[in-house]
Amino acid sequence: MLIDNNKLQEECGVFGIFDNDGFDCARITYAALFAMQHRGQESCGIAVNQDTHIDCYKNHGLVHEVFNDYVLSQLKGRMAIGHVKYSPKGETGAPNAQPLVSRYIKGQMAFAMNGCLSNYLELKHELELAGAVFQTTTDAEIVMHLLARERLKTGRTETALANVMKMLRGSYSIVIMSPKKLIACRDIMGMRPLSIGKIENSYVVASETCAFDTIRADFVRDVAPGEIVIFDKKNGVRTIADNCMDRKKCKMCIFEYIYFARSDSVIEGMSVHEARKLTGKILAQTNPVDADLVIGVPDSGIDAAIGYAQESGIPYGKGLVINRYVGRTFIQPTQEERLTAVRLKINVLKDTVKGKRIVMVDDSIVRGTTCAKLVDMLKEAGAKEVHMRISSPPFTWPCYFGTDVPDKENLLACQHTVEEIRDMIGADSLVYFPVERLNEIVPDINCGFCDGCFTGVYPYFHD
Amino acid sequence: MLIDNNKLQEECGVFGIFDNDGFDCARITYAALFAMQHRGQESCGIAVNQDTHIDCYKNHGLVHEVFNDYVLSQLKGRMAIGHVKYSPKGETGAPNAQPLVSRYIKGQMAFAMNGCLSNYLELKHELELAGAVFQTTTDAEIVMHLLARERLKTGRTETALANVMKMLRGSYSIVIMSPKKLIACRDIMGMRPLSIGKIENSYVVASETCAFDTIRADFVRDVAPGEIVIFDKKNGVRTIADNCMDRKKCKMCIFEYIYFARSDSVIEGMSVHEARKLTGKILAQTNPVDADLVIGVPDSGIDAAIGYAQESGIPYGKGLVINRYVGRTFIQPTQEERLTAVRLKINVLKDTVKGKRIVMVDDSIVRGTTCAKLVDMLKEAGAKEVHMRISSPPFTWPCYFGTDVPDKENLLACQHTVEEIRDMIGADSLVYFPVERLNEIVPDINCGFCDGCFTGVYPYFHD
Amino acid sequence: MLIDNNKLQEECGVFGIFDNDGFDCARITYAALFAMQHRGQESCGIAVNQDTHIDCYKNHGLVHEVFNDYVLSQLKGRMAIGHVKYSPKGETGAPNAQPLVSRYIKGQMAFAMNGCLSNYLELKHELELAGAVFQTTTDAEIVMHLLARERLKTGRTETALANVMKMLRGSYSIVIMSPKKLIACRDIMGMRPLSIGKIENSYVVASETCAFDTIRADFVRDVAPGEIVIFDKKNGVRTIADNCMDRKKCKMCIFEYIYFARSDSVIEGMSVHEARKLTGKILAQTNPVDADLVIGVPDSGIDAAIGYAQESGIPYGKGLVINRYVGRTFIQPTQEERLTAVRLKINVLKDTVKGKRIVMVDDSIVRGTTCAKLVDMLKEAGAKEVHMRISSPPFTWPCYFGTDVPDKENLLACQHTVEEIRDMIGADSLVYFPVERLNEIVPDINCGFCDGCFTGVYPYFHD
Amino acid sequence: MLIDNNKLQEECGVFGIFDNDGFDCARITYAALFAMQHRGQESCGIAVNQDTHIDCYKNHGLVHEVFNDYVLSQLKGRMAIGHVKYSPKGETGAPNAQPLVSRYIKGQMAFAMNGCLSNYLELKHELELAGAVFQTTTDAEIVMHLLARERLKTGRTETALANVMKMLRGSYSIVIMSPKKLIACRDIMGMRPLSIGKIENSYVVASETCAFDTIRADFVRDVAPGEIVIFDKKNGVRTIADNCMDRKKCKMCIFEYIYFARSDSVIEGMSVHEARKLTGKILAQTNPVDADLVIGVPDSGIDAAIGYAQESGIPYGKGLVINRYVGRTFIQPTQEERLTAVRLKINVLKDTVKGKRIVMVDDSIVRGTTCAKLVDMLKEAGAKEVHMRISSPPFTWPCYFGTDVPDKENLLACQHTVEEIRDMIGADSLVYFPVERLNEIVPDINCGFCDGCFTGVYPYFHD
Repeated sequence: MLIDNNKLQEECGVFGIFDNDGFDCARITYAALFAMQHRGQESCGIAVNQDTHIDCYKNHGLVHEVFNDYVLSQLKGRMAIGHVKYSPKGETGAPNAQPLVSRYIKGQMAFAMNGCLSNYLELKHELELAGAVFQTTTDAEIVMHLLARERLKTGRTETALANVMKMLRGSYSIVIMSPKKLIACRDIMGMRPLSIGKIENSYVVASETCAFDTIRADFVRDVAPGEIVIFDKKNGVRTIADNCMDRKKCKMCIFEYIYFARSDSVIEGMSVHEARKLTGKILAQTNPVDADLVIGVPDSGIDAAIGYAQESGIPYGKGLVINRYVGRTFIQPTQEERLTAVRLKINVLKDTVKGKRIVMVDDSIVRGTTCAKLVDMLKEAGAKEVHMRISSPPFTWPCYFGTDVPDKENLLACQHTVEEIRDMIGADSLVYFPVERLNEIVPDINCGFCDGCFTGVYPYFHD
Repeated sequence: MLIDNNKLQEECGVFGIFDNDGFDCARITYAALFAMQHRGQESCGIAVNQDTHIDCYKNHGLVHEVFNDYVLSQLKGRMAIGHVKYSPKGETGAPNAQPLVSRYIKGQMAFAMNGCLSNYLELKHELELAGAVFQTTTDAEIVMHLLARERLKTGRTETALANVMKMLRGSYSIVIMSPKKLIACRDIMGMRPLSIGKIENSYVVASETCAFDTIRADFVRDVAPGEIVIFDKKNGVRTIADNCMDRKKCKMCIFEYIYFARSDSVIEGMSVHEARKLTGKILAQTNPVDADLVIGVPDSGIDAAIGYAQESGIPYGKGLVINRYVGRTFIQPTQEERLTAVRLKINVLKDTVKGKRIVMVDDSIVRGTTCAKLVDMLKEAGAKEVHMRISSPPFTWPCYFGTDVPDKENLLACQHTVEEIRDMIGADSLVYFPVERLNEIVPDINCGFCDGCFTGVYPYFHD
Repeated sequence: MLIDNNKLQEECGVFGIFDNDGFDCARITYAALFAMQHRGQESCGIAVNQDTHIDCYKNHGLVHEVFNDYVLSQLKGRMAIGHVKYSPKGETGAPNAQPLVSRYIKGQMAFAMNGCLSNYLELKHELELAGAVFQTTTDAEIVMHLLARERLKTGRTETALANVMKMLRGSYSIVIMSPKKLIACRDIMGMRPLSIGKIENSYVVASETCAFDTIRADFVRDVAPGEIVIFDKKNGVRTIADNCMDRKKCKMCIFEYIYFARSDSVIEGMSVHEARKLTGKILAQTNPVDADLVIGVPDSGIDAAIGYAQESGIPYGKGLVINRYVGRTFIQPTQEERLTAVRLKINVLKDTVKGKRIVMVDDSIVRGTTCAKLVDMLKEAGAKEVHMRISSPPFTWPCYFGTDVPDKENLLACQHTVEEIRDMIGADSLVYFPVERLNEIVPDINCGFCDGCFTGVYPYFHD
Repeated sequence: MLIDNNKLQEECGVFGIFDNDGFDCARITYAALFAMQHRGQESCGIAVNQDTHIDCYKNHGLVHEVFNDYVLSQLKGRMAIGHVKYSPKGETGAPNAQPLVSRYIKGQMAFAMNGCLSNYLELKHELELAGAVFQTTTDAEIVMHLLARERLKTGRTETALANVMKMLRGSYSIVIMSPKKLIACRDIMGMRPLSIGKIENSYVVASETCAFDTIRADFVRDVAPGEIVIFDKKNGVRTIADNCMDRKKCKMCIFEYIYFARSDSVIEGMSVHEARKLTGKILAQTNPVDADLVIGVPDSGIDAAIGYAQESGIPYGKGLVINRYVGRTFIQPTQEERLTAVRLKINVLKDTVKGKRIVMVDDSIVRGTTCAKLVDMLKEAGAKEVHMRISSPPFTWPCYFGTDVPDKENLLACQHTVEEIRDMIGADSLVYFPVERLNEIVPDINCGFCDGCFTGVYPYFHD
């Protein structure tokens, strides 16, 4: 299978609302995107549909930077979709911001997509041969073109979408706003989350359930892998499930639990916070160590550290303080070598760690530099021992479905043994989460999961 | 004694550096201010002194918003002072930003002050009678005028400052940059913190020691209450201690430990984090309760919650998730009532709290609305019981030294009994920190402390 | 023939450079666009081609607002194209800014177009039936799609363009940048100007020759109506003239001379300033009047007023002063009725006009309100008589080729006789340019001209 | 007498309104400042007085950049003053923007001043000896301090101001807003203009009468040199004329007519445009030349060129076109040498100047580089002869009253003979305005004038 390494790989968030109550759709979308800001900080946008006319506002920046009260008040409509975008490869072109709004034979259409097509290159090539012209480098634009073409052959957008989904390989959740309908779908493997919620008589869809809590929507259910859900005035809610397969065979990305999702989200029946606590508990059972204090690297290691403390009986404490004002736009004063990014961001609580044997928990090690710095700072502050615990297995395989993994050369775990890494970061011991117990961290999950980045076993390759 | 309720009351942060090593003073000041951002988010500024000429850049906004790489590169000098400012009363006039830079008979002078003069009105009136013209409403400008006048009578700025300090009543830490000297002083009661640090052969002063960690300075000592410290090329470091009194009689503001300071700072020998953990431990001893989980309101209640869990043996957990993107500029979508500020900021971990008896710890209750909302959200998520624990005593007296307390009418604790408050917030039990044990939370403190806002007993009133 | 009144009608400016000398293409394009700013103030953009990779920067705003030194320094390449855009209908969507950059089967392509397709709707419909998806409402996107499709059938972009030109009806000048070529063309009627210039060994094309003077390029020749010119490394300059017809039958828009173009441009051999002076001279011969002073409405009537003064022998003077700081972003303080836009912009020189019989010259009357205001201001200042002279014939027909004419209901000349208009504006006499002498104002023109907006006789309709 | 060359020398504009009709004072001030924008483009500000409380908004930038609709709507009051500021020496400190707002024993006071104190240093020194502290480098702050001190001794602000005026030497117009009064005054020599206008029952004062036309105020009279005018609710308009001397001995700056003022203003009874036309007429009588066309350098030489053409009988024409989009923020693309500032700004009308003998008129020559460039461009375009005419005498003396003249080394006229300069600029002839006829250009002036910059004879030095 052809893999395109040069295209953008994205982990983003989508949202949609079909209003039957007179809500302010733009503001609800804004709040939902704000709740999912962690899924993408590069750009964001909201498209609204007023009487079949679609307006869209999008730009670089965080949700609260891009939108202000005036902009929101101009975005009126009875439907809205929104998107937050992440761009790992430094491609920050404004044209790539979503939603995309297009005009085609059937009028306007707005399009927001989270995920990554593994057959992007093939699809793009076919379209180009048919005369297609692209103005972005997004997967979303490919799907938009396919949909416009398929729509010519079929009477309904949802039927066209069902046909298009058969052409797509990869992970995605898509929200589409046509002149009269809101349509949502999820890839047949179900690799990316997408849930349905309800506020009074109105419907919402979102990548993560934390968005529902923020807007006080009730969780209804997850969109099924391969399912298309259609919201409109005439028929309410309908579903097309022809593409769906046995849910147990589906492959939710395990990295959503470990890293991507907000800890207060629930994905396919499984609480993300509970999954992370379980990683800590299992770590505590793996090569246990005598220690005085368990601490988490803020904010990424806190959940697992709490689980570790509960399982091990070692007291949980706060050994590191994070500066809450560190933001995307923080300028590192590089001219002064002593002012490192880590020190600007994190500080050690000296009186707390002095003379103690510390277990420090984090969710991953990528290049190892931050980790080494923290171990060094703890030791400098008087910690007697520092035992590093990582709540994911070593990261040794690429991901073709949207997780932005560094090149092998930059992945510590590909180049070194665990003992070598322990030595490099200066810890007294180092334990990774045991890959064979990954299934134990998602006991309540409704479906299967993909752990290709830890195991090299991917969906599609073996079907 | 005359109290002026209409002037600004401030809790800010100051910093100064006297460089002997060739450091980039502006960037070090930037990093230090960034570390003390929690002391003031309204405006900030940096003044540098190059060959006796002082340049200053200041504006509304957070440190990383006001300064960028270009601005920092323009601020060159062998000395610098900086300031972060908080404006509780909504007065956001740009002229009030500090440092103030003045020209007087002896050349230029830059001025940064943290604190609050209780005899502001009297001093201002006297100056006006002598023809003074003010362009801001800051205490700093008053001191600047007094200093310029006193300087005419004395040969040295520091002598003039010593004389001026005798006229001032209230809490303050001041950093002054004259053409050739950096001068720092602290009020004679020592109500606001100010510490001296060292980087190689260069000296720094800062309101909080967390700034030292960020810039990798070594802590040297606290400036003594009433002390003036002078840094210059010729004499290195000198001190004027004529105004100092018995340190045990000094009155460090207890609210610095409970609320203002960053938990990784050490003030007058006492770790702020440890003080907060002690409040939690003492709370656990006061009206103990049977429960399944201790949680802290993020971020204000986390330290005390950890102490509570350690003392009570009830597991520490995470029951609330905070949206890290909530910032100063977040626009609350007020048109939609359902989108409350609390929900946009904090969410409950349902699977974690469901069916549990919860102890929730926070540092204070002001109006009680947020607290009631959180209790409600926990119960809605299935918590069986919610026991509220507050790590400070009820707030019943005004502060005349810089702590911005609401009017009595807005202070829940002034209007209601504890039982009434418990009822209003909907908690199953409510316990405040016992005021008589306040001395136990700062066992390592070098001096006395002021707890006037809890007891109504103030310095100056009784001396 | 189908006319689409809802699409954007544009009068814009294009520029392109193919560099063989190592010039800074982005900065030269910037200066050229700056010189043509009068052709479009809504948005602008520059695309550069570096080793077949195309980068583009575009935004709302004036050229000097959109670009700064940093942005220009990032735009590197051996070719560049630029565009300034005008949006008469208030459609200010960022997606409509040009150049458009597309990716298709043959790589990237940048596209800038000035003009208006009269068969836009038909072409759009055909493309949509073939599955095309549009993301803007520009004519340029239509041509871009046609070109991509045609390119699949032919070996070269220029051949594809020649085929596409046969499908287009309307006025346009187009500059295209493909990975290796710069291509320029002009509509077969030659309704919009486009000229070729040379700087040392490098080639430039621009909508107006004033751009050449600004960048010190030598004028080479006009692109012929229907001609395609190709610049590349291998072949230098080539031309495809298959679409060209007899130049005398071509139809340059007369409004370019009267209104659009900058007076220092030369179009099809005719100086714009000289054409405008000739309108004044002919006006002076038409219904001559006894007067003391000839003044022009700044800046639109100055050239014709000079011609009028020269022909009539009445002294030329300055009776009106324009505030040079009036800009696009000027906020009219509407709350105060007395502060009218005209008064903020123009003032009368009282001492100059007092007691005088004035001939006031302007280029057109649209709604008549500004004109009435000026007559009123002159009379109020003591002018004895005001004789209005308009250097164009009455505007009575719509334009289908890019001139943004108001609806008939808003056109004074469609609703009233000249005498009625004279009465409405309060002038002592009113004379329009005699339509039958239009041919006399462009004695040096190389081709025919279109005066459809004055006569109702259009190209295409009668061929 | 001591002259301070290091302080700022300013030519600014002031405005004030005392409203008795319910006008929107901020918007009227905005429009008036907009009309006087030519007097200062560096910064501007408006202060309003609502029920004795003064609010002020000021910043760097042009009037339309600093203010927007929202800001204006927040500035409410029954009085307002405004200021536009020019900073010739590159000192662009925000603190120097005016109006200055101060708090002193009698409440708040806002202060706007145009001009330059020649005894600034002495006054500043005396104030400093009395303990004064300055926060700007403006003359205005000096006067503000003197006024606050004097006010302690006298019962009324206007009496204090009369006393202060006796201490001041130099040129100035001042507008002061106290809690209940608007006060305006003009220096005793009357070197800077200041006029009184009326709108219905409300009063306005402005540096130039063009502001009155813009806001439709009627001109009442000039403030007399040395006069203080007081507007308040109780007494209407009052005047203090004790400082006034014989008007004929007063010294209006001749440069206001030649250069500073807008041509539609009338100063001390003399129209600025007429004065400029007279310079052209007198030039035409001085060393007359045979030529085909008179042109003015836009916009500075247009008025004088019209006068020259009228007197000489040589036709007036347009030979140079200015790019109206050239603004303060225009970034010159310096990397490309060919893109000079002059070419970006001005272009030659080739067809108009070709083969002609041209008289080119401008108001001054400073360094001569622009002039040389224009002569070169005209010749390059085919002009047979270029005769340069300058409508002011050579600039050979410094100004101590606010006119920002370059150092002697940079003044062409100080270093070279007229013949040398003619040679350097490449003109066929060069004639300056004859200094001995300066009195002829202001026949209607009510008072004397200062021509120190041309003659070296200054007020104060010789009294």
